[in-house]
Amino acid sequence: MSERVRRGRPGHDQQSVLRVAIELFNRQGYDATSMGDLARELGLTKSAIYHHVPSKEHLLERALDEALDELTAALDAVRADASATPEQRLRSAVRSSVVVLAGHLPAVTLLLRVRGNTPAEKTALARRREIDHRLAEMVREAADAGAIRDDVDPLLTSRLLFGMVNSMTEWLRPETDVEQLADTVTTLAFDGLMRHD
Amino acid sequence: MSERVRRGRPGHDQQSVLRVAIELFNRQGYDATSMGDLARELGLTKSAIYHHVPSKEHLLERALDEALDELTAALDAVRADASATPEQRLRSAVRSSVVVLAGHLPAVTLLLRVRGNTPAEKTALARRREIDHRLAEMVREAADAGAIRDDVDPLLTSRLLFGMVNSMTEWLRPETDVEQLADTVTTLAFDGLMRHD
Repeated sequence: MSERVRRGRPGHDQQSVLRVAIELFNRQGYDATSMGDLARELGLTKSAIYHHVPSKEHLLERALDEALDELTAALDAVRADASATPEQRLRSAVRSSVVVLAGHLPAVTLLLRVRGNTPAEKTALARRREIDHRLAEMVREAADAGAIRDDVDPLLTSRLLFGMVNSMTEWLRPETDVEQLADTVTTLAFDGLMRHD
Repeated sequence: MSERVRRGRPGHDQQSVLRVAIELFNRQGYDATSMGDLARELGLTKSAIYHHVPSKEHLLERALDEALDELTAALDAVRADASATPEQRLRSAVRSSVVVLAGHLPAVTLLLRVRGNTPAEKTALARRREIDHRLAEMVREAADAGAIRDDVDPLLTSRLLFGMVNSMTEWLRPETDVEQLADTVTTLAFDGLMRHD
């Protein structure tokens, strides 16, 4: 908080600058966005913007960390529930990833577009791979426990499953009912389209 | 073919120029790619490139049409099979979209990144929405026939389903066994992760 007061100007704390930056990066691409563009969007001069943020890459790092920290925390919470079965953990992981994606939509959208052109992007891609690896491990554990089908490759399954989740960044709107969406995604992932009654 | 001979130079027919252009657009972004970049990649001078293609946007149009024409033709073929049930048609649509995506991976990847910044992109987005609408219609028909669950919204279901298919552009490799992948995707979509034995 003290940093906000010290570095911010009225109407522009660190968080609001970050929100605007993420929105700009998503709209026109990170590479195509300059600090001048960001200053203009915030109604600041180009030199005043440096009171708020040291660099464009610093903003990118914070945005990507936001998405990655939230996804990692969600998986940590799932893992920490020792009473859950592997199937329940996988269900929770699918559900949580929908909730994190919806709750941090701009940051997750930015993360999913990262191609690894800068050091910050390379670091983010490495963290994404770590998350993919943890998700694939959860699929494998549920298959090993006999809870889910074991006739498909765990890595392929987790890619398809979380590819479905991630594709929501294409159309999700702030007014979407997230709990209901999370239920639908989990039901489709585990039970598929067919009726089983 | 006569146009190829007339306009092309040894080693560069219209198709090979298009392949290189799509690859460049995907690698560095359409907006960030100049005709000069394309000429350099092809080993041509900047003026010689105009012997091959009238403009950058012309190449984008052809690339997007390639993806859209293939997806449309696949859905037309599914629709034309009058003996198939709505469920079988939906299964065929899922399967075919995997096969088209794999067979035209660079063009489909480009299509999925389009944000509607140019007239060609706006046209492509309109055609994509038409395809989405047809897929949602197939989901609705299968639900109405009682073949698949009717407790989820058809548009949401088709978005999630084809979101899963489209997410394959993130990791699909030329050596992937497409038939096997199409089986896995169809199985996951219809039967889900759970064992049903």
